[in-house]
Amino acid sequence: MKIGMIGLGKMGHNLALNMKDNGIDVVAYSRSPEKVDMMKEEGIQGVYTIDELCESFEEQRVIWLMVPAGEIVDNVISQLEGNLSKGDIIIDGGNSHYRDSIRRYEKLAKIGVRFIDIGTSGGMEGARSGACMMIGGDDEAFEKLEEVFWKICVRNGYSYIGRSGSGHYVKMIHNGIEYGMLQAIGEGFEIIQKSDFDIDFEDLSKVWSHGSVIRGWLMELCRRAFEKDPCLEGVRGVIDSSGEGLWTLEEALRLQVPASVMAQSLFARYYSKDADSFSAKVIASLRNEFGGHSVTKRQG
Amino acid sequence: MKIGMIGLGKMGHNLALNMKDNGIDVVAYSRSPEKVDMMKEEGIQGVYTIDELCESFEEQRVIWLMVPAGEIVDNVISQLEGNLSKGDIIIDGGNSHYRDSIRRYEKLAKIGVRFIDIGTSGGMEGARSGACMMIGGDDEAFEKLEEVFWKICVRNGYSYIGRSGSGHYVKMIHNGIEYGMLQAIGEGFEIIQKSDFDIDFEDLSKVWSHGSVIRGWLMELCRRAFEKDPCLEGVRGVIDSSGEGLWTLEEALRLQVPASVMAQSLFARYYSKDADSFSAKVIASLRNEFGGHSVTKRQG
Repeated sequence: MKIGMIGLGKMGHNLALNMKDNGIDVVAYSRSPEKVDMMKEEGIQGVYTIDELCESFEEQRVIWLMVPAGEIVDNVISQLEGNLSKGDIIIDGGNSHYRDSIRRYEKLAKIGVRFIDIGTSGGMEGARSGACMMIGGDDEAFEKLEEVFWKICVRNGYSYIGRSGSGHYVKMIHNGIEYGMLQAIGEGFEIIQKSDFDIDFEDLSKVWSHGSVIRGWLMELCRRAFEKDPCLEGVRGVIDSSGEGLWTLEEALRLQVPASVMAQSLFARYYSKDADSFSAKVIASLRNEFGGHSVTKRQG
Repeated sequence: MKIGMIGLGKMGHNLALNMKDNGIDVVAYSRSPEKVDMMKEEGIQGVYTIDELCESFEEQRVIWLMVPAGEIVDNVISQLEGNLSKGDIIIDGGNSHYRDSIRRYEKLAKIGVRFIDIGTSGGMEGARSGACMMIGGDDEAFEKLEEVFWKICVRNGYSYIGRSGSGHYVKMIHNGIEYGMLQAIGEGFEIIQKSDFDIDFEDLSKVWSHGSVIRGWLMELCRRAFEKDPCLEGVRGVIDSSGEGLWTLEEALRLQVPASVMAQSLFARYYSKDADSFSAKVIASLRNEFGGHSVTKRQG
C-alpha cells in the first residue's frame, strides 16, 4: 500500500513516520520544502509539488490530507483534481467541518474520486505510535484501506462510523466532550488550589489516574503537567479554541440540545482571553450608578 | 493485620472480600444480620454487635467504617467510643463531608483514638479488586496501615493527601469533576442521537475508549451501557445526586471559584428530576401574558 501525505505539520509528520514503521510506502509533500527535507532525513520519500506527488503513483492513488481545516483543504483538492483518475481515493484526516466533508465527497464523486473523512484523535503521541480514527464516507475505500488503519491505530482504535461526514461529525462531538471534561478538571483543581489545604497536585493527579472513576488520559496529562511545573507558575491561564467546540455548540443549538456544560466550557475560554471584558465594565459601571459601588479606574 | 469492617453495603462487602483475598484478617459487622451472614458464607468472620467487634481484637483496634455519610457515622463512632482504647484507629472510608471528618478527628484525638478519612473511588469493581484511595488524617496511623492500602488498591492508586479532612476533601472535588465529565459525555451523545446521522453508540464509545483524548473509565462504562441497551430505551433520564456535587459547588461559592460546569452539571440533575418544573410554568405563563403564546394546559 502506498500513501501520498499532504501536510507535514505535527500530525502529518508523525503519521507519516508511523506509516513508515508499519511498512507502508509513504510519499510526503508540504508547501514548505524544509518540512519535506525533514521527512527525507527520516528516510521517507519526499516531493516538492503536488504534480510530482500524483505522478509518483503507478496505480490507484491514495492521497491523505493533514492540513488545517477550511479553505486550504478546498485549495489542495482543486490542485489535485486535474491529476486524479477515476477510483483514486482522497482522505481528509484533519479537523474539517462535517458539512464541508459532505460537500467535498459529493463534488469528488462526480469525477469518480472516492472521499473519506477521518476524525483523528490521540494527539501527536497517538499519530506517532497508535492513533484513534473515526472514519466516514466511501465504504469501499474504507475496506480497501482498512489494513492501513489497522496498522497505524491502537488496537480497537478505529471504526467505520458511517456515511460521508460522520467521521468528522463524531470528532467534532468528541472535541465538545473534551472541552467539558477539561473545564471540569480545571475547576476542580482551582477549588483545591484556593482551599485551606496544602495539596500536591502531581501526587493527586497520579492517584486519580489509578483506579478512580475519573481516570483517563486527560488525568495522566495533568500529572505530566504538574510534574513539570507543580503550581503551573510558568503557564498563563489563556485558552485558545480551534473551532470544534464552537461547531459542537452550533450543532446543539440547531438540534435544540441543552448542552450547558459545553457552552460554559466554550465561554470560559472566551473569558480567559479577556481579563478586562466589556461586559464586566458595563456591570461595574451600573453597580456604580445604582448603588454608588466604587469602580476601578483604568491606569494611565 | 486485622480490620474490623462496619457497614456491609456494596462497598463494604467488596472491600472486605478484597482484604480477605490479600491475607488481611477481617471481622465484619452490619446492623443487618443477613449481611453479616452473607459475609460468613464468604468465609469471613462475622459479628452481630459492635461490642463483639471491639472485643474480637487482642491488640490495637483498627475499625473501618463504610456506612452512609451523616448522622450514621456519628452514631457508630459514639457506640464505638466506650469500647476503644488509646492508640486504636478509626477509618472512615465513606463519602463524609470533610468538615465532619475534621470534627471527628479532633473529638477522637481527645481520647487518644487516631482517625483517618479516606475518599474511596473506583466503584464496586475497584472495591473488589483494586480501589483508589485518597487518605487524610493521622499520618502515623497511615504509616501503620500503609501495607493494607498497598494490598487493596491498584498500583499507584493510594496516597496520603495530608492533614485531617483532606482525603474527603479531594474525594468531594473528584466527584465534582465526575459530575462535569458525565454531563459533557451525556450532552455529546444527545447531540449525536438527535443528529441526522445513524451512529452505533456502542461502536463509537469503543473507538473513543482506544487512543482518543477522551478515553478513560467513564467512556469504557459507556460502551458497557450501550452494549446492554443500544439506545438506552430501558433507562429513564432521571439523575440522582448523593451530595458531593452540591458540596463541591458550596465550596466553589465559598472560595469564589467560577465553577460553571460543575454548577450546570448539578442543575442538569435537578432539571432531570422535574419534567414539569415551576420555573417552566412561570415562563410559559409570562409568554402567554405578554405575547399571547399558547400554554399547554394540564390534563385532567
